[in-house]
Amino acid sequence: MEQKRVFSGMRPTGRLQLGNLLGALENWVKLQDEYKCIFSVADWHAMTTSYDDPSELKENTMQMVIDWLSAGLDPEKSIIFCQSDVKEHAELHLLFSMFTPLSWLERVPTYKDQIQQLREKNLATYGFLGYPLLQAADILLYRADAVPVGEDQVPHVEMTREIARRFNYLYQTDFFPEPQALLTKIKLLPGIDGRKMSKSYGNTIEMSDSPQEIAKKVNQMVTDPGRIRKTDPGNPEVCTVFAFHQVFNPEGVEGVERACRRGEIGCVQCKKQLIKHLNAYLEPIYEKRKVLEGQRDYIIDLLREGAKQAKEIAVNTMEQVFALVGFKL
Amino acid sequence: MEQKRVFSGMRPTGRLQLGNLLGALENWVKLQDEYKCIFSVADWHAMTTSYDDPSELKENTMQMVIDWLSAGLDPEKSIIFCQSDVKEHAELHLLFSMFTPLSWLERVPTYKDQIQQLREKNLATYGFLGYPLLQAADILLYRADAVPVGEDQVPHVEMTREIARRFNYLYQTDFFPEPQALLTKIKLLPGIDGRKMSKSYGNTIEMSDSPQEIAKKVNQMVTDPGRIRKTDPGNPEVCTVFAFHQVFNPEGVEGVERACRRGEIGCVQCKKQLIKHLNAYLEPIYEKRKVLEGQRDYIIDLLREGAKQAKEIAVNTMEQVFALVGFKL
Repeated sequence: MEQKRVFSGMRPTGRLQLGNLLGALENWVKLQDEYKCIFSVADWHAMTTSYDDPSELKENTMQMVIDWLSAGLDPEKSIIFCQSDVKEHAELHLLFSMFTPLSWLERVPTYKDQIQQLREKNLATYGFLGYPLLQAADILLYRADAVPVGEDQVPHVEMTREIARRFNYLYQTDFFPEPQALLTKIKLLPGIDGRKMSKSYGNTIEMSDSPQEIAKKVNQMVTDPGRIRKTDPGNPEVCTVFAFHQVFNPEGVEGVERACRRGEIGCVQCKKQLIKHLNAYLEPIYEKRKVLEGQRDYIIDLLREGAKQAKEIAVNTMEQVFALVGFKL
Repeated sequence: MEQKRVFSGMRPTGRLQLGNLLGALENWVKLQDEYKCIFSVADWHAMTTSYDDPSELKENTMQMVIDWLSAGLDPEKSIIFCQSDVKEHAELHLLFSMFTPLSWLERVPTYKDQIQQLREKNLATYGFLGYPLLQAADILLYRADAVPVGEDQVPHVEMTREIARRFNYLYQTDFFPEPQALLTKIKLLPGIDGRKMSKSYGNTIEMSDSPQEIAKKVNQMVTDPGRIRKTDPGNPEVCTVFAFHQVFNPEGVEGVERACRRGEIGCVQCKKQLIKHLNAYLEPIYEKRKVLEGQRDYIIDLLREGAKQAKEIAVNTMEQVFALVGFKL
C-alpha cells in the first residue's frame, strides 16, 4: 500500500526559534517515518507580507532549510522544496479562485485580525485576501491526506476541505481528498524575559544558538522576583527557568520544583542544570548546523532536487485536474 | 530594430460574429504587418464565468481559432496560443496579486456592472474580482508595447499601466513598459431584427455563415416598417439593411440611400445588393474555413507551437522578474 501523504510548509523567516522546533519541526521529523512527507518553503506566502522588500527572503530560506536539516528532516525520506520553484501552485490557485466565493475568504478568522495587527504594512491587497486559497492549492496539489498544524491553523485546513468539496461537487468527482488536520500539541515556551517569545522583544532563543549563547541566555532568564536569597522558598509557576525545565528536563522537573519551593536550590544552580539539559538537546543540532553552513551548494541542489520530485506529483495532479474540468484542448 | 509587440486576447465563446470580425479581428489581421503580434485564446478568462460548466470551452476554442485563421491571422507572422498552456500567466498574476490593493480591483467600472448583469451566475468569486489583474499579467508577461482594444476595455489597459508602474516603483526598475491602448474604431452592426446583435436574441450573423445562410438572414432583415410599397420613400436611418450597406458597401451606399429615399429601389432589390457585397467579403473566409474544419490536428499543432513560442518569452520574463524582485534562491 502506498504511504499516506503529509504536506506542510513554513514561511521563510530566517533562523528558527525554539518554539518553531518544538511546535512544528520536531513533529515533522517524527512524521517522516510514518508518512510520505512534503515540506515546502512557503516563499510565495512570505511575499504576501514582504512584497515591498523581499531581499531577505533568499537568506531566510537558506537559514531555515539549514535548521530543518539540522533538526533531522531528511531529503532521503521527504520532499523538501521551495513553493515558488513549482509553478503549479500558482496554476491550481488560479483555478480555485474561479469558484471560490469572496465571502469564504473574507470570513477567515485570521484575515481581519492580521490586517489590524500589521496596519503599517498595507495588507489590504488581493493576494493577502487569497492567502488561504493558496494554502489550499499547496495542500491539494499533492493530494495530501493530512496536514500537521497548530490550533490556530485549523480554520485554514477547514477551508482547504471546503475547496476540495466544492471542486469535487462542481466536477462530479472524488479526486481531491479532504485532508485531515493533525493537531500538534504545542509546548509553550516564554522568552527569556518571561514575556511571549518574539523577535521584536529581543527575548528569543534560536534553535541554532551555540552552547555558549544558550548558557548566556539562560543566565539572563527572569526567575521568581520575590525570591531574594537562595534559601527563600520559590514559586516555580512564575519562573521562566522552570517553564524550560518542564519541557527539556521532564525527568528532573519534579525534583527541581520541590527543591525550589523548599529553598533548597538556588537559581544559579537551577540554571546550571537547565543549561546542561538544553545543550544536551540542542548541541547535536548545533553541530550538524556547523557542517551544513559550509554546504550552501548542497542545500541549493537539495532544494532543486526536491522541486523536481514535487513537480512530478504537481504536474500529474494538474493534468488530471484539467482533464476533469475539461477545459483544455 | 526589434518590432514593437502587440498583445491581445479573446475569450473562447465559439464561432465569432460579424461584430467580432469588424470590431477586432480585422484589425488584428492588419496589425500583423506592423507589429510582432501575440494573440491569446483567453481560456482562463472564460473560466471566470464558465467555471461551473467548462465543457464547451474546448470546442469553442477550436471554432474560434478556425475563425481567426480564416480571417487571416497567420501563425507564420504571429504567435497564436491558448493562455492556459503557458503557466507563467498564473505565476505573474500571483506575483501581481501580492502588491495590488483590493480597492483598485473593486473600483474597475465593469466589475459591479457585470456582477449585476450576470446575477444568476454567482460571480462574487475571488477569481472574477481578479480578472483585470490576470489581464495585466497577460499583457505584461510579453512586455507588450500596445494593446488593441475597444472603448469599453480602456479602463483595463489603464489598470495594466498602473500595475506596471507599481511594479517598477516597488522594485526600482523600468522593466515593464506601460502599454498603450490602440483604440479600434468600432463599426456598429445591429442584429438582423434591428436590435443589438446578441446570441441570446437569436439575431446574429456569424462570420462563418455560408453564402446561403447569409442570403437567408439578409432576406429576414427588418427594414423601414413605414414603407409599404416599393415606390414609397424610405427612411434608411431606421433600416437594418442600410446599416449593413454602410459597412460593406461603402462605395455604393450613397446611391442606395438616394434611391431608397426617392422610392426608386425596393427592399428586395436593395437586399440583393447587400447579399452580393456581404458575400464578396465573407466568401473567402467561408472557403478557407471549409478547408480548416478538416484540419483539427493542424490547429492543435499550431496552438502547441504557438504556446512554445509564447512560453519562451514568458519564461524569460519571469526569470528577469524574479531576479528583480530578488526573492528566489
